[in-house]
Amino acid sequence: MNVAQEGDLVLLISKDYKNYMITLQTGSRMQTHRGMIMHDDLIGQPFGRQVQSHQDYPFLVLEPSTRDLIQRTKRITQIMFPKDIGYLLLRLNVHPGRRVIEAGTGSGGLTLALARAIQPNGQVYSYEQQDHIQRLAQENIAKQNLDPYVTFHLRDIAEGFEEQGVDALFLDVRDPWEYLPHAHAALKGGGFFGAILPTTNQVAHLLNDLRRASFSALEVEELILRPYKAVPARLRPKDRMIAHTGYLVFARKILGEIDGDWFMPTRGRDRAAERGDQDDYW
Amino acid sequence: MNVAQEGDLVLLISKDYKNYMITLQTGSRMQTHRGMIMHDDLIGQPFGRQVQSHQDYPFLVLEPSTRDLIQRTKRITQIMFPKDIGYLLLRLNVHPGRRVIEAGTGSGGLTLALARAIQPNGQVYSYEQQDHIQRLAQENIAKQNLDPYVTFHLRDIAEGFEEQGVDALFLDVRDPWEYLPHAHAALKGGGFFGAILPTTNQVAHLLNDLRRASFSALEVEELILRPYKAVPARLRPKDRMIAHTGYLVFARKILGEIDGDWFMPTRGRDRAAERGDQDDYW
Amino acid sequence: MNVAQEGDLVLLISKDYKNYMITLQTGSRMQTHRGMIMHDDLIGQPFGRQVQSHQDYPFLVLEPSTRDLIQRTKRITQIMFPKDIGYLLLRLNVHPGRRVIEAGTGSGGLTLALARAIQPNGQVYSYEQQDHIQRLAQENIAKQNLDPYVTFHLRDIAEGFEEQGVDALFLDVRDPWEYLPHAHAALKGGGFFGAILPTTNQVAHLLNDLRRASFSALEVEELILRPYKAVPARLRPKDRMIAHTGYLVFARKILGEIDGDWFMPTRGRDRAAERGDQDDYW
Amino acid sequence: MNVAQEGDLVLLISKDYKNYMITLQTGSRMQTHRGMIMHDDLIGQPFGRQVQSHQDYPFLVLEPSTRDLIQRTKRITQIMFPKDIGYLLLRLNVHPGRRVIEAGTGSGGLTLALARAIQPNGQVYSYEQQDHIQRLAQENIAKQNLDPYVTFHLRDIAEGFEEQGVDALFLDVRDPWEYLPHAHAALKGGGFFGAILPTTNQVAHLLNDLRRASFSALEVEELILRPYKAVPARLRPKDRMIAHTGYLVFARKILGEIDGDWFMPTRGRDRAAERGDQDDYW
Repeated sequence: MNVAQEGDLVLLISKDYKNYMITLQTGSRMQTHRGMIMHDDLIGQPFGRQVQSHQDYPFLVLEPSTRDLIQRTKRITQIMFPKDIGYLLLRLNVHPGRRVIEAGTGSGGLTLALARAIQPNGQVYSYEQQDHIQRLAQENIAKQNLDPYVTFHLRDIAEGFEEQGVDALFLDVRDPWEYLPHAHAALKGGGFFGAILPTTNQVAHLLNDLRRASFSALEVEELILRPYKAVPARLRPKDRMIAHTGYLVFARKILGEIDGDWFMPTRGRDRAAERGDQDDYW
Repeated sequence: MNVAQEGDLVLLISKDYKNYMITLQTGSRMQTHRGMIMHDDLIGQPFGRQVQSHQDYPFLVLEPSTRDLIQRTKRITQIMFPKDIGYLLLRLNVHPGRRVIEAGTGSGGLTLALARAIQPNGQVYSYEQQDHIQRLAQENIAKQNLDPYVTFHLRDIAEGFEEQGVDALFLDVRDPWEYLPHAHAALKGGGFFGAILPTTNQVAHLLNDLRRASFSALEVEELILRPYKAVPARLRPKDRMIAHTGYLVFARKILGEIDGDWFMPTRGRDRAAERGDQDDYW
Repeated sequence: MNVAQEGDLVLLISKDYKNYMITLQTGSRMQTHRGMIMHDDLIGQPFGRQVQSHQDYPFLVLEPSTRDLIQRTKRITQIMFPKDIGYLLLRLNVHPGRRVIEAGTGSGGLTLALARAIQPNGQVYSYEQQDHIQRLAQENIAKQNLDPYVTFHLRDIAEGFEEQGVDALFLDVRDPWEYLPHAHAALKGGGFFGAILPTTNQVAHLLNDLRRASFSALEVEELILRPYKAVPARLRPKDRMIAHTGYLVFARKILGEIDGDWFMPTRGRDRAAERGDQDDYW
Repeated sequence: MNVAQEGDLVLLISKDYKNYMITLQTGSRMQTHRGMIMHDDLIGQPFGRQVQSHQDYPFLVLEPSTRDLIQRTKRITQIMFPKDIGYLLLRLNVHPGRRVIEAGTGSGGLTLALARAIQPNGQVYSYEQQDHIQRLAQENIAKQNLDPYVTFHLRDIAEGFEEQGVDALFLDVRDPWEYLPHAHAALKGGGFFGAILPTTNQVAHLLNDLRRASFSALEVEELILRPYKAVPARLRPKDRMIAHTGYLVFARKILGEIDGDWFMPTRGRDRAAERGDQDDYW
């Protein structure tokens, strides 16, 4: 039945578009910027309705999406953005049954998306060095009943990964180039490598080392999310946006020797063309 | 075992970065721009290796990702881009066990991503009017052994959807506003609605009608993928990029009455502010 | 001599990158977030030096650029951004000797850039309805000694423009389509028309009416300025950016009859292609 | 009079939006993709009209803008884009009376825009090493009668610049860091320095060296031009766009000693924040 139940995570959106995420508990109450909402008014009721706070302010009662869970999850670290996560799931071939390593765990936003995507017969192996950060991620994952699909490791990945032959491996760490031999050892042949990095210097460093560590098919991409004001008669982009979350770097693990570099060519264009292919622009 | 087998879809990348997708068949041969590759040289061999064409040109043998399958799938219609698909999976809360409607089926790129995401216990209901288009999509889905997870309907959605209480519904059609009552009828309370549209006029039209059709929490977003040249010493964006694939429109099905509009506010800013919030820019 | 003089507008940048714009006056003092700066410490001194506030905090003493003047000018209305202004000067063929109309004057940011660009033998005709707004613009223009190059009109442009045969005309108003016959009457044959508008609905409205008002060669463009953190070892885009200032619409005044529409074609592509030209993307 | 005259540069736009730039000469004819156009049909006629080719295909006769001149100019090198040029004119404070150095001259697109902007009492000093490239630029400048405003130097800038105390200096060369001491020597105190570079590696290199060469107020920006299909009922971005022309780097010449680095701060944010300020995003 499509009704909210004790223990459900519920998304409340106020008419002035403030969002709240709550776990329903009989007898609890939620203080909003516009008055109190009683959990008991939600429990047993269908999703998609409007409820009123005790100040008579309207709220929508909604099931949260994976995006909402990532965004609204409790966190003490930077988390990855849904736009980046959605795309890397497709690029790293993450789907039911796959075995995936991630490091670091952080607050567990990516962990959650990975666990959802590989269930019921896959597994996420998530590495984190800091105890208190790992505990928060574990709580976040447990709330979604996804703990069977995640193996948490409290460990410095400089000591290597415990798994072998995994399908994909994603590094959200400051210095991913330090762990490439370990990453190579953990991945299956042709396995999917991914990383996110904020600076161009880091990207250049990683690209350089990936080639030496027997990775190939290097690609770098960036996703920009542009939000619009959803007003039919005044449709336009919002005034401000997130300008940068990170560069996504992708590569594939290579077995044996290959002939030199293997990435999207700039060859066939002379040096001047580094300035842009303009000929058919105007 | 991580070896290529008869019937596998395999991605070949040449050293000059041409891509080929082939289904392995004993005794077959593949003609590339740089000579022939014998399927028998791949069958039974691990992924991630380099093979040579008979002209001795090197190719990488790789397992295709969901992105590769979407991009490289045979198609006779426009398809959605992986950047948009990955994001809408998170926004529409598509994960194992969910029931999702899409229309139209088209060449089946989104169908494939949805089917992968909802297996093994969910279902995709995919609507298409044109027989020959549906057949191509069915072939593409069958190649991935995803047919148990997709119910294909050959039908004009102006006649309505057959399912009820579905978790999410996505429209990739020219005039989605025509089908909102049907979409509302098919979705569960609070269910996730999504659409992709190329023009701003269509977006404004859809936003306007969504509000009248008992949908709320309207949001419009756009994703821009910026590819980079993955050369460590000359890292920079590529010269050209796809400038536009479509605007993504999201909404939630509402049960009962709600108080007026319910989308991201522009209120609290005077009319002049439609020109941009500049005050802390400089 | 390249020294700061009484009456000069001077840009001060503090070490923590706060900006101040001051007009030098003997005996004056400037209160900053980091202590006082005496104007007399600047007057007669060369630009490009560091000075100390009385709290011993360092500031750079710089000549402001046209960009700085636009950005830092006193204002009570939204102003146009330098990125948009710089581009439209080239698109509207604004250079010394040209005669240009703008409406509305607003705080005079664009007025300043136009006046600088057309001097010493051109003229800007600037229309504004509101007295107190015009007065502010006049002060801003006078500070730069640009008043000989600007004719200010306090007038509702619904009554038409006083000039004829002008080279270019730019509308920064809410409803530019209302004034197209007047704009046509004021421009010379082939004259340059431009407008900036925040919403897609306005752009569509204006495009539609431009064609009926004997304008052609319609073009719509948008400029996005992406700022970077200028740190050599951690080069990356800033976290946030202005997502939208406005759509720029350009057209040319036509004399006599022309054969139908005349803008960048979508023809030659079938309807489906409205979804994006994907064929050579992957 | 606003009529086309012998010797004028004229822009012809065909109904299917092909552009031609011609210099009018009595008795000449222009071969287009849709038939011949006789120059004599244009000479003495007003701008803004439609003419027919001898195949009866319609063309608009227009005065070219500075943008058109830059874009349509004959060229044998990469040229800068108008979006970048318009912006740097405002950032480098280029206006009538200013003295500006540029290197290299290239095909003269920027030279033209600079010369137009500084006339009638300023001067552009343009450096180029290659004889045949300089000659082309000289022809392009002469066609616009801008030669009085440009001093061409055929010279390797490694030998230094001949001028001193110039207001602004712009480098469009591969290795601008090599010439910073010369640039510093040529600029006045506080003078405006600019450069355009295609790769992030070059930007980092230049930023690093600028600080050591007594430049400050370093800023890096990038402009993205997004073109739209100007169709009122189907308004939307074009399918493809130029993704990258170059990063713009700006700095100011410093006199004497200053206290350490002086650019937009990242301080006040902990290291983790290098990943993006997310807190108020959702």
